[in-house]
Amino acid sequence: MYKLEHIGIAVKDMEASNELFARILGVAPYKQEEVASEGVTTSFFRTGDSKVELLEATRADSAIAKYIEKRGEGMHHVAFEVEDIHAEMERLRSAGFRLLNEEPKRGADNKLVCFVHPKTANGVLVELCQSIRD
Amino acid sequence: MYKLEHIGIAVKDMEASNELFARILGVAPYKQEEVASEGVTTSFFRTGDSKVELLEATRADSAIAKYIEKRGEGMHHVAFEVEDIHAEMERLRSAGFRLLNEEPKRGADNKLVCFVHPKTANGVLVELCQSIRD
Repeated sequence: MYKLEHIGIAVKDMEASNELFARILGVAPYKQEEVASEGVTTSFFRTGDSKVELLEATRADSAIAKYIEKRGEGMHHVAFEVEDIHAEMERLRSAGFRLLNEEPKRGADNKLVCFVHPKTANGVLVELCQSIRD
Repeated sequence: MYKLEHIGIAVKDMEASNELFARILGVAPYKQEEVASEGVTTSFFRTGDSKVELLEATRADSAIAKYIEKRGEGMHHVAFEVEDIHAEMERLRSAGFRLLNEEPKRGADNKLVCFVHPKTANGVLVELCQSIRD
């Protein structure tokens, strides 16, 4: 069973968007984190048992920069928490889904992540994420 | 404080997409509901404390049909649960947000809903929803 862990929103200007979503959601962001390997800065808001993650590109070649160039700012992905990301990746691969990374990679928020190609998921960029227990 | 209540995904073929998301999420949809006033059929999946809602247009002039024509299938909106939708609408209006409906309207899943224009919310169609207590 999957829990909706967070939605990711691509933004151009983190400072302005942090203020914007703080006004919409009525809460301040509780954490900012750079994921250098992905070329993004992230910011998190708690929304009940799930989170809203804002993503701003730090490089012109980051996936977020390309996404905004093509589609504009907006909802970028939805992430579901799994217990065993390797098993879930194998399950989805066997069911015919195309995965964007062959092995789990380190994402923001102390997680191992894997993305399912939107072409095989109704146009939705689906992220699987598993918390890393240190 | 807002809870992320659900994300809405625009789909072309509900039967195929129900099967697709059942495979991705590992659970079957638990409810289907038509919202005639919006020209949509909806289908819901439980994902932890939140839900995934699929939306298929039942008319060519429904917002979902227009969305798919313009942007293709994919994530359409994100909904946050509020206690008092009238108060939240007034709060957001005063803060400069443009609302798509002046009064709350009846949506799927026994809720009163209101949408915030994506132009004032970083390209994200934000729904506020309040459960109707019968």
